[in-house]
Parts: sequence; structure tokens; C-alpha cells
Amino acid sequence: MNQLNARVETLLDSVGSSSDPLKAIEMAYQRIEREPHRNCWIHVRPHEEAREECRRLMVRARAGENLPLLGIPFGVKDNIDVQGMPTTAACPAFSYMPSRSAKSVERLIAAGAICLGKTNLDQFATGLSGARSPYGSCASVADARYISGGSSSGSAVAVAAGHVVFALGTDTGGSGRIPAGFNEVVGIKPTIGLVSSRGLVPNCPTIDCVSIFCNTVMDGEAILDVIEGFDPEDPYSRPATHSTAAGCGKAFQFGRIASADIECFGMDECAELYERACMRFSRLGGKAVEINFAPFKQAGELMFSGPWVAERRSVIAALTDVENGGLLDVTKTVLRSASSYSAMDAFAAIHRLYRLRRAAQNIFADLDALVVPTAPRPFTLDDMHRDPVTLNNRLGYYSYFANLLDLCAVAIPDARLSNGMPMGLTLLAPAWCDRKLIDLARRLDPDGGGAAFELRSRTPENES
Amino acid sequence: MNQLNARVETLLDSVGSSSDPLKAIEMAYQRIEREPHRNCWIHVRPHEEAREECRRLMVRARAGENLPLLGIPFGVKDNIDVQGMPTTAACPAFSYMPSRSAKSVERLIAAGAICLGKTNLDQFATGLSGARSPYGSCASVADARYISGGSSSGSAVAVAAGHVVFALGTDTGGSGRIPAGFNEVVGIKPTIGLVSSRGLVPNCPTIDCVSIFCNTVMDGEAILDVIEGFDPEDPYSRPATHSTAAGCGKAFQFGRIASADIECFGMDECAELYERACMRFSRLGGKAVEINFAPFKQAGELMFSGPWVAERRSVIAALTDVENGGLLDVTKTVLRSASSYSAMDAFAAIHRLYRLRRAAQNIFADLDALVVPTAPRPFTLDDMHRDPVTLNNRLGYYSYFANLLDLCAVAIPDARLSNGMPMGLTLLAPAWCDRKLIDLARRLDPDGGGAAFELRSRTPENES
Repeated sequence: MNQLNARVETLLDSVGSSSDPLKAIEMAYQRIEREPHRNCWIHVRPHEEAREECRRLMVRARAGENLPLLGIPFGVKDNIDVQGMPTTAACPAFSYMPSRSAKSVERLIAAGAICLGKTNLDQFATGLSGARSPYGSCASVADARYISGGSSSGSAVAVAAGHVVFALGTDTGGSGRIPAGFNEVVGIKPTIGLVSSRGLVPNCPTIDCVSIFCNTVMDGEAILDVIEGFDPEDPYSRPATHSTAAGCGKAFQFGRIASADIECFGMDECAELYERACMRFSRLGGKAVEINFAPFKQAGELMFSGPWVAERRSVIAALTDVENGGLLDVTKTVLRSASSYSAMDAFAAIHRLYRLRRAAQNIFADLDALVVPTAPRPFTLDDMHRDPVTLNNRLGYYSYFANLLDLCAVAIPDARLSNGMPMGLTLLAPAWCDRKLIDLARRLDPDGGGAAFELRSRTPENES
Repeated sequence: MNQLNARVETLLDSVGSSSDPLKAIEMAYQRIEREPHRNCWIHVRPHEEAREECRRLMVRARAGENLPLLGIPFGVKDNIDVQGMPTTAACPAFSYMPSRSAKSVERLIAAGAICLGKTNLDQFATGLSGARSPYGSCASVADARYISGGSSSGSAVAVAAGHVVFALGTDTGGSGRIPAGFNEVVGIKPTIGLVSSRGLVPNCPTIDCVSIFCNTVMDGEAILDVIEGFDPEDPYSRPATHSTAAGCGKAFQFGRIASADIECFGMDECAELYERACMRFSRLGGKAVEINFAPFKQAGELMFSGPWVAERRSVIAALTDVENGGLLDVTKTVLRSASSYSAMDAFAAIHRLYRLRRAAQNIFADLDALVVPTAPRPFTLDDMHRDPVTLNNRLGYYSYFANLLDLCAVAIPDARLSNGMPMGLTLLAPAWCDRKLIDLARRLDPDGGGAAFELRSRTPENES
């Protein structure tokens, strides 16, 4: 048993390996069947099939096979292939039946985890709200009037509602972080290329990655142990060139945004939560360093106000007819802006991004992590439907830059606003610092000590 | 004294550190002044100034300062800044006086090397012939009817004619290799980002790098020791994430191109030289493995038959007026093709390149190096002036792909054709394998044992 498996085994022991995996599957299906109104699933696997798989896995485990995630139910965002289930990317006309599972899913299944189905998302992962799907909008588990965040809306909601123990998402501009924040769960956004992206419906392939939604940072680390690793079949996979196993010292330095750069778009209470979080981190041994946010902000603006929308369109146009392929109006509107950019614009923006990356890297030279709010503020579903493009861009203020600047990130719950909506914090660090960031996140997460691999419901009406 | 300095010291000892640096300077200027017809210099530093600098350096060395390259005369391609000399990029209208030297030049000067001037090039480093400069065409030192190769034409010729001990060039699509081949010198093209590109006139910044022309592979390694290293000021600098110090085992595997993929464009003798070289390498302990050349060829075709010409144009357009800035007609013709590409084309090509990179990396998994001819065949200056675009693209058949696929390369002399023109071989390996490649090149180079730091003239009329 290698070191990574040992870590997972320890986690399983901590919840009692004697616990019956079948019971978790039963409980998961009870909740899934009771809560179709959450719109978090696009496809649910037949209950009996999952139960049968669990029994077979238990036989294998008793025969001595090493199955570190034995019987743990999980969900998969519906832009990631799972063999035997259709992939829709939230576009019914695009639906296809994949011949293989994505590499990350293959690894989870090989470790004994059980996929219960495919989760809802903003169409073609284009959106940060969870309100851009023909399968219905997802609301925050904390308040049905508010957006869940997206694009991995269903994955975050399924974890937060206790339908599954964890779920895979994807993250290009914040899709693995924003919905974690609005649903009070943990979101791990690995370094691009650390987890294979083979089997993803591409979006912006140079900055897409698989992400993890889970209940605790330690759960997330154990899942990452299973799914990470170089994949020679994936053009975007990168051999981990730095150690990803280094932790963070007890005393640490964290970057913080100056008050002048904080954006709450009218909900000042969000800024107060951020100030309080920074003070809390200082008490935990962190030295706050006010950073120049300009390179981060400018990089983020490239996502939809620059040629990267052409990357998105070039990929989606290769998959489906943008104008007549059954896309939502809002998806079409976003993609249409791509045609105004030339190849010269694209390269000029790429060069600008190199300069911004270097500026950001130089800022990180003195920091263990940068701490930002996960999102500026929550919006209601009504707000979002009224002005889907402007508000979406606002949601990305603290998230768009991460993959463009080649950073890794961990989103953790922070606190609740007076209206009851949860808000999150995101820790960021340069590529390959995933483990250092996880180590730090575990210490800063209010619930960081807990390692569970259990179904936990965060819904007010249905405490578990 | 660190290990790298120790290596340089050993080299200096091998030519006798008692030799008078001033004598080398005198000899260099004698040749430079005697051979203006070579067109290899755009700007020559006043002789007296170089002599003075040499005297000052000798005083410092006698006072105990560590100057590993004490008094070694070198040239710098005129798209790399040297403080006190104009930078033209072979476009007189573009000329400017830089306020600082390029980082690589600063490091050489700090090590005691003496810059004698700026060398000729294909305008804005756009060309592989040496026949695209308003400062005159450069011919091969072996035969004045034939091209020198480019774009670093002057740097290769200056070394081959014994005007300098080494020279800096740049390499985007083969500019650091092609002219090495046609002038029987060594060309080191490091991994992109290993040597800072601060102070270069950019061309395609994502794939530009500084290169070294020198007489022996060992000379080249010692120069690389001095100029390599991460530079936080350069957005394209990359921290060396793998060890670059690993050598190559005695038994090695080298990739070779199948006969069907060899291109000589009508000069079959070139293919015979390649076959003979492969046999020679096998006798030296190498196992030849025939590789699939398709990913290399397809990547190479992206350089000018794809959106990368838009990268070049976006950069040059930011520096000067492409239509009215005094550019040569051929430069304008090449750059005009950029306007046909959209940002979607650019990203689609970038995604294709990622796939080709992965295919190439998977091929390299079983190889210590890939061995290719440096260029398919030599062309005469007359040929080149008659059909400058088609023949230029032919010259890049074995070189265009290297930087696009993130490879490092060492070009070494091989043999002479029956007409007396020298032909070279290029060894290639994935990024960060520079030292392994140098180790192998030293063993395969017919003149690999020699480490000299001396002025050597390869001209038939003027043996030194």
C-alpha cells in the first residue's frame, strides 16, 4: 500500500470501515428521489444497478482487493464522460453515449467509488450561475431564491444536499469554486494538467480542468490522490515537475486584497466578511500582505472581454452548430462575440497574459497563498434571468484569472451573510503548489479538522 | 568557484590561460577588417574600445576577480540589445539605441567576454537563408555562391570565419541551426525559457529563444553555463523544472527518419549523407529507431502555413509600420498572410499543436534524441533571390517544428557534399534535456573532443 492509499485508508478508518457501504447508497437514493426540485441531476443511474455494483465491490474487497474508495457514492458533472450514461453538456441536442469513461472517472471507479449519475451544469460549462440549463436552474441549498453558482451547479448542490459524498466538476473560469461558495462545500481546483482532462467535453482546453466538490478539505485531498497523475493520452496533461507534496509552515504569509480593490456590487456586508476572515487568518498564524490586484484583475478581464471567448467558440463550433444546434440564447449571445477577434488579437492577448503571469508569479514569490472571496456577492435567480451576461461577469471577478494565470485553488466555506446565504473564500497559489494549498486550507477551514467521506446535507429543511 | 565556473576554467586552462587575450582581440579585428565582403557585421565596435576593455578586464582578473570568459571576443545578432550599440533587426528605419543590454549579453560581459559588434540577420529574424537583409546577403564561408543560412546568418559566419570565438543568435524556426549547418559550426538551441529573452527584438515570443554559435560543443556548453538561468523580468523565462545536468548513457537510442520522409528537394546526395551519419552513430553505440515523422512535419507546417505568422505580425506591427516602415518586400509578403486568420483559427491551431506535442513527447519516451539533417539541402543565393518564399519554407523542413513542439536542439557539423558545401545534423530532445543532448552531441560531433575557445577560420582561402 503506497502513501496515498494509506491516507485514504486512514480516512475510511476514521468513519469506521465497518460501516455498511450499502446503507450510504440507500440514503443517497432516498434523498435523490425525494428532491427532484433541486434540478441537480440530468441523469440518475438506476438504484438497483448501483446497489448491485456495491455488492460486487464488497465481494472484491473481502477477497483482499485494495479499494480505497469502496462504496463511496459520487456524482459527475455532465460534461465529463461516464461509460453507460449519456453526456449532454446541458444541451439535449448534443447528447451522445460515450464509449469510455473519462480518465478521472475510471480512476475513481477503479478505487471502488460508485457513480450515481450525471449532474446539471450551465450549458457547455459557459456560465457561473447555475441558471443556464434547459434541465432547470439550480438554487443554493441554503435559499431557493438564490443561485447555486455554476457552471458545476449540480455537482455542488448534490454534495451540499447530501445526495453524494463528493462530485466531479470542471473549472475554466471559476466553475469549480463559485458553486462551492454558494453551497458551503469545499471546491478543489487543481493545477491545470495535474488531473487528466481526457473525457471532458472541452470548453477552453488550454485552461480547463477537472475539479472536486466535497465536504472537507481532507476528503478532497484523498480524492485528488486517486485522480491525479500524468496521462500520456491527454494533450493537456502535464508531468508534475515540482513536488506537489510540500506542506505549509505553521507561520505563513497570505496575500490579501486592498479594500479599494474589493468588489461587492452593492452588498457591502460581503466586504465585511472578507475583512473578518483576514483577521481570523492572522490570529491563526498568518501574516497578511496587501497585494497589487491589478495583474489578477486584468487577466480575469481577458476571459470574456478578450479573445479567449474565441477559444471557447472554436471548440464548441467543432462539436455542434452554434446557431442551429439547440443552444440557449444566452450561450449563443456569449459565443457570438468571438467572431470579432483576429489571430493577431489572439496572440497579442496571449503575450499580454504571459506578462501578467510573470507579474502574478513575482507577487507569489513572497506568499504562501492569496486569499480572495470566492464570489463578490450572491445574486437571486430572478436577478440572473433579468441580466444574465453582466451579472455573470461580475460573479467571475475573483475567479476568472486563476486558470489563465496558471494557479491552483481551494475554495472553502467562510461564513453566512445576515440573509443566511453562505459565502466562501478561495486560496490560490502557483501551479503545482496544490498540496501546500490543501495543507493551508485544512487549517483555515472552520470545519477543516473533519475528515468524513459521509453524506452531509446542508439544507435548512432537511438536516442529516 | 561553483561547478559551472569550474568547467569554464578547465576550458580556459586547456588553451593555456597564459595566452594573451589581447592577441585574440587583435587577430579578430584583423579578420573583420580584411573581410567586409562577408556582410556578417552590421555594427563593429571601435577596435581601440575593445582593446581598452580587454586591458581593464585583465587588471580585474589579476586582482583576483573571477572572469571565466576573460577576453573572449564574441558577436551578437542584431536583434539582441547591446548597450552602446544600435539595434536594427536588419531594418535601418527601425534602429534604436537600447538603454540596457539583453540579459544574456549582460551575463557574458560580467563573465569577462568582449562584444565586438552586432551581426547581420534576415530582417526581423524572418527567414532561414541569410539573403533577406538590407545590409547585404551572407554567403556560406565554404562557397560564396551558396547561402549562409539564416536568420542568424552573420553570427554563424562570424564564428566560421574566425572573426569571433562565439556569437549569440536567436532561434524561432531554425535560425540558430540552419546557418550552423551551412557554415560547419556548432549551434546550441536551448529549451525555450532556459536563457532569458529579455532584450530581444521579439518575433514569435512564445517560441523565440537565444542560441549559441561556437566551434565545439564543449565551448557551447560553457557559454550556456554563463547565460542560462531563470529571469523574473522576462515573461517567457521558465524555471528549469527538471534537472538539466543529466548526461546520456554510453548505449543510447536515437530516432531516425524513414527514407520515405527524407526531403532533399532534388539533391539526393544529402539523403546519402544522412544514412551514413546514422550508420556512424550506430557504430558509436547508438541504436537507431525509425520514428513516425508525421507529428513533427505537421507541427512544422504550422509555422508559416498557419496562424503563427499572425503571432509574428502582431509583434512586428507593434514595433513598426508593416507597410510603410522600410521593410523588405519579402518581409511584407510573409507578414501580409497573417491577416487571413481569425482568433478561432489561432486557438484551433494551438489545440492541434497541443495534440502534436503530446504525440512527439510520446515518441521521445523511448529515445535519447532524434537525429535529423539540419537542412534538406543548400541553395545558392541566386536560387534564393529567384524564389525567396518557397525555398525558405523548404529550408525549414527539419527545423520549424522544434520550438513549436517545445524541444531543445544541438546542431553539429556532419560532412561535406561533393561540391564542398558542409551539411549538418541536428539532435533534438524534449524541453530541459539540454545537458543530455550536449553530452550526446559531444560524442557524435566529429570534432567533439576539442574544447578551445579559440578563433578558427573555416574559409578555404584563409586557413588559420
